[in-house]
This record gives sequence, structure tokens and C-alpha cells, in this order.
Amino acid sequence: MSNYPKKVYLNGEIIDHKDAKISVFDRGFLFGDGVYEVMLQMNQNFFFGKEHLERLSNCLQKVYINFDVSTLPNKIHRILEASDLKKKDCLIYIQITRGVAPRKHAFPNNTQPTVMLYAFPFELPDINNPVKVVTMPDHRWHRCDIKMISLLGNIMANDHAVTQGAYEAALIRNGKVTEASHCNIFFVKDGILYTHPADEHILDGVTRQIVMRLCKDLDIEVREEAIHENDIVKMDEAFLTGTTSQIASIRQIDDHSFYQNNEVGPVTKKLQEAFLELKNK
Amino acid sequence: MSNYPKKVYLNGEIIDHKDAKISVFDRGFLFGDGVYEVMLQMNQNFFFGKEHLERLSNCLQKVYINFDVSTLPNKIHRILEASDLKKKDCLIYIQITRGVAPRKHAFPNNTQPTVMLYAFPFELPDINNPVKVVTMPDHRWHRCDIKMISLLGNIMANDHAVTQGAYEAALIRNGKVTEASHCNIFFVKDGILYTHPADEHILDGVTRQIVMRLCKDLDIEVREEAIHENDIVKMDEAFLTGTTSQIASIRQIDDHSFYQNNEVGPVTKKLQEAFLELKNK
Repeated sequence: MSNYPKKVYLNGEIIDHKDAKISVFDRGFLFGDGVYEVMLQMNQNFFFGKEHLERLSNCLQKVYINFDVSTLPNKIHRILEASDLKKKDCLIYIQITRGVAPRKHAFPNNTQPTVMLYAFPFELPDINNPVKVVTMPDHRWHRCDIKMISLLGNIMANDHAVTQGAYEAALIRNGKVTEASHCNIFFVKDGILYTHPADEHILDGVTRQIVMRLCKDLDIEVREEAIHENDIVKMDEAFLTGTTSQIASIRQIDDHSFYQNNEVGPVTKKLQEAFLELKNK
Repeated sequence: MSNYPKKVYLNGEIIDHKDAKISVFDRGFLFGDGVYEVMLQMNQNFFFGKEHLERLSNCLQKVYINFDVSTLPNKIHRILEASDLKKKDCLIYIQITRGVAPRKHAFPNNTQPTVMLYAFPFELPDINNPVKVVTMPDHRWHRCDIKMISLLGNIMANDHAVTQGAYEAALIRNGKVTEASHCNIFFVKDGILYTHPADEHILDGVTRQIVMRLCKDLDIEVREEAIHENDIVKMDEAFLTGTTSQIASIRQIDDHSFYQNNEVGPVTKKLQEAFLELKNK
């Protein structure tokens, strides 16, 4: 069975996934010169859709790609319709590159951005199974606030984790935990949440932001302070956040186990439940 | 007039550049998951072709893409023939990506790497005109030894330079000059050459290696020591090296001018002349 989406929206056309092709001179292919976004449709709503499109818009500006995200909802509706997903829960992937031009490092003038979207059915588990995480050096660049497609650093880290039977890699920069290869990471100690500040070394995830809002509602203190790798073992709880990972409790980081079996810590559990309510609204 | 090459070699086929298309699910397009090489044919010889293919092979290994570079010379001959460049000086671009798979961070099993090559006529100037360079922070990742296509950091730096009327950006990491966005950089002080050591913060350029060999022949001392940004103004000479840039004398870095007009320093000149001899061999 194919794990590809049925249809792809590509520069104004809806195409079968097999026929969805771009020029080898697309700067996305030659230089990783583009940005992307992943969002969910749940209960016939775009889950925090406004926030996702705003972030995409910010990232486009950061890399000087001139594309108006207000044109996207219409394109999203078209791909959902073509994919028979208008009324179904699904994942929507959006990628915008700088477009097609002869290979030259500096940005070309007046190229038309390449716009690619697809959607496919995606059943989110109510609560994710607790996951295993391994630490490794954060080799990525110093603008991780940009959700770009130049992802070799991220995919190498993720592959390293998966090869070791883990779900994610927790990345260590200058001794501190930044984030994971496609998730943000939170720790809990004495009822207080800790996560890396939203600076240029992490992507400020939409689910990260949701968790921080939930904490406000639930009167849980959050400190945007990075945790030192040596202090991981002193933490009470840890979890990952991400659009598809949601709030995933971390069972184990390297050799350190937080819980026995599939237990979940009380603060993580509280947030997972509040998040579930939000989803089912 | 088109600045595209006439023909493209893509996965075994020779195609018109307009028809050279890859799947939007190519990991090169989705993740910048690939490596590349640029080399020259001069006087019907691949200029240091063995070294270029060896580096490509090393980079493929570093990112775990399973592709045998010994199959490339035959493909290169095919694209040169199809492009009417068999007997002409030209530039050859080679890109290998991990291939096509549904989007998932970790490396897929058993994908066929995507192989893309093209060639186009390229007249190298005997000696490059002296160039202007601007400094900026080196935001790139910590594996710059890999010649990868996840190049957003490099192209943003290069565009920053070009926007300011410069040829290149000299990148500063922890106060030290690493390299430029697509060149290595050398400084000369009291007859001694200085350049960043070939560690994980620079690409060990083939032209960089050639310069170091020429220095041996010419009895010029080379120290693989990074220069502090504050010491740039104390240097006697500076130049860039790269496959297409060759040995390009730097006239000016930021507000500091090394020379009046188009003067070139004596050590740079000596190396340029020795390089020219090598090319015309």
C-alpha cells in the first residue's frame, strides 16, 4: 500500500502524486531554499490554523520569499476536496520554495515561488504512547527559528535516534537541551515546567505555544530556561510537543528511566487531558 | 538567453533541461537530503577530477547515501557528449540525493538515490579580478565538512554579500574567520599563509588543497590557523579559493582595503601564476 497522499497541489494544479514533479532547477531541490508547515484538520477545523499560517508567513519573511499566505486557505480547500478529505481528520503539508532559476547562490530576481501542498488521512492517538529519547550533539545551524527545508541536520539526528530504537533525539548545544529533531521538549521539576527559550536555537512550535497557554489556564508555572544535560536525571517528568507528536510523555532519556512501564507523570497527564479537551472542542 | 544547461542527465536518461523533473517526494526537495560536487573540464581533462569524486564519495558516506561514484565517469561522458561539450572547457555539476520516499524524517530503506548531472560551457578567466568581501556571523551548522544541498545558511550569507555589492561573505564563528559562503579563505602575513584548519567548520576545498600543495613546491609556509576577525586589518594579503573562483585576490574586506585599485599582493600573485601553469599543463 502506498504511503503517499493521493493528490498533490502543485503551482495551481491538482495532480496525482505520481505525476507531481518539479524542475531539477527548483531552488528547493538545489539549495534546500524553502520553508514548510504541517497542520491538522480535526473535526472539520484547522487546529490552530491561524497560528500555523502566521508562522509560515514569518518564516517566508525571514528568508525573503515573497509569497502571500492569505492565498493558502483556498488552495487547502482545493486539495482537501480533491483528496476526499473535506470532512475527515487529516494532516496538511505545505511547502513553499523560492522557485526555479539557474543555479547561483544569491537569490534570483522575480522568480515565481513553488507552492506544493498535500493532505492525507491521519488518525491522532488520543494520548501518545510514552516514548524513548536519546541525547546527541545539536549540530544544526544558528537559525533554528526558521522552519526551513534545509533539514539534513534534523534528519540525521532523527535517523540516529530511530536506529537506536528511540522516537526522538534530544539535542544538546553548549551543554543545554535545546529541542528534539522535530519536536520541542519540556521538563517538569517540583511542579514547574522548563523549556528552552524561543530564541534562534529552537523552533517555537505551535503545540509548544498551546502547552504554555494551557499552563496559564491550569496555573502551572512555566520557566523558559534550558535544562543542562547533566540535570536531566534530576527531572521529575519530561515530554515532547509537536503537531503530530502532540504531547508525548518521555519514558526514558538515554539510560535514565523516568517511569516504570507506561506510567505518565501527573503534570504531563494533566496537560495531555487539557490538550485532548481542546482537540475535541 | 537561457542560462540553463542544454541537457540534464537524470537517473539514466538524458533530457532537455525544461523536461528534467523530479518527484516532489524526492528527499532532496523535501529535506535537502543530498550532496553535490562541482568540477571543471579543462583542456579535455577533468581538473583534479579524482579529488572531486573522492570528496563526493566521502560526503555520501558521511550522510549514509549508498551510491558508487565509480559509475560517474561514464555518466559524465554521456552528458558531455549530449551537451556538445566533449572537447570544450566546461563546468560539471553533480547532485546525488537519497531518492524518493513518503515524507518521514528518518532515512527510508532501499530507496534508489536520485542522480542528476549537467554541464555547461564555462570560460574561466586566467586570473580573477580582485573582489570585495563582507564579514558576517557564521550561522551554519557544525558539519560544514559535508558538501550538502541543505544550503539555506550559505545562500543567505551569499545573498547578503551580493546585496552589499560584494562577491562573497567571510563568515565569523566564535570570533574567527572560518570560510566564505562557497569559497575557502586565506590570509598572508609576513610571507606566511593562514587558513582555517580543515575541521567540521569548513569544507576542505579541492582548490584549497591545490594551493597548499603549490605552497609546498614554492616553499611558502602555510599554517592551518584561523584568523581572528580583529586581526583581518593586520594581514598583508587575503584571497579566496574555489573551483569556479580559483584564486581570487581580495581587494577589500568590509571597510578595510588591502590594496589600491586592482593591485594584487606578491604571495597571492605567485600562487595565481603557479595555479595558471597547473591549469595549462
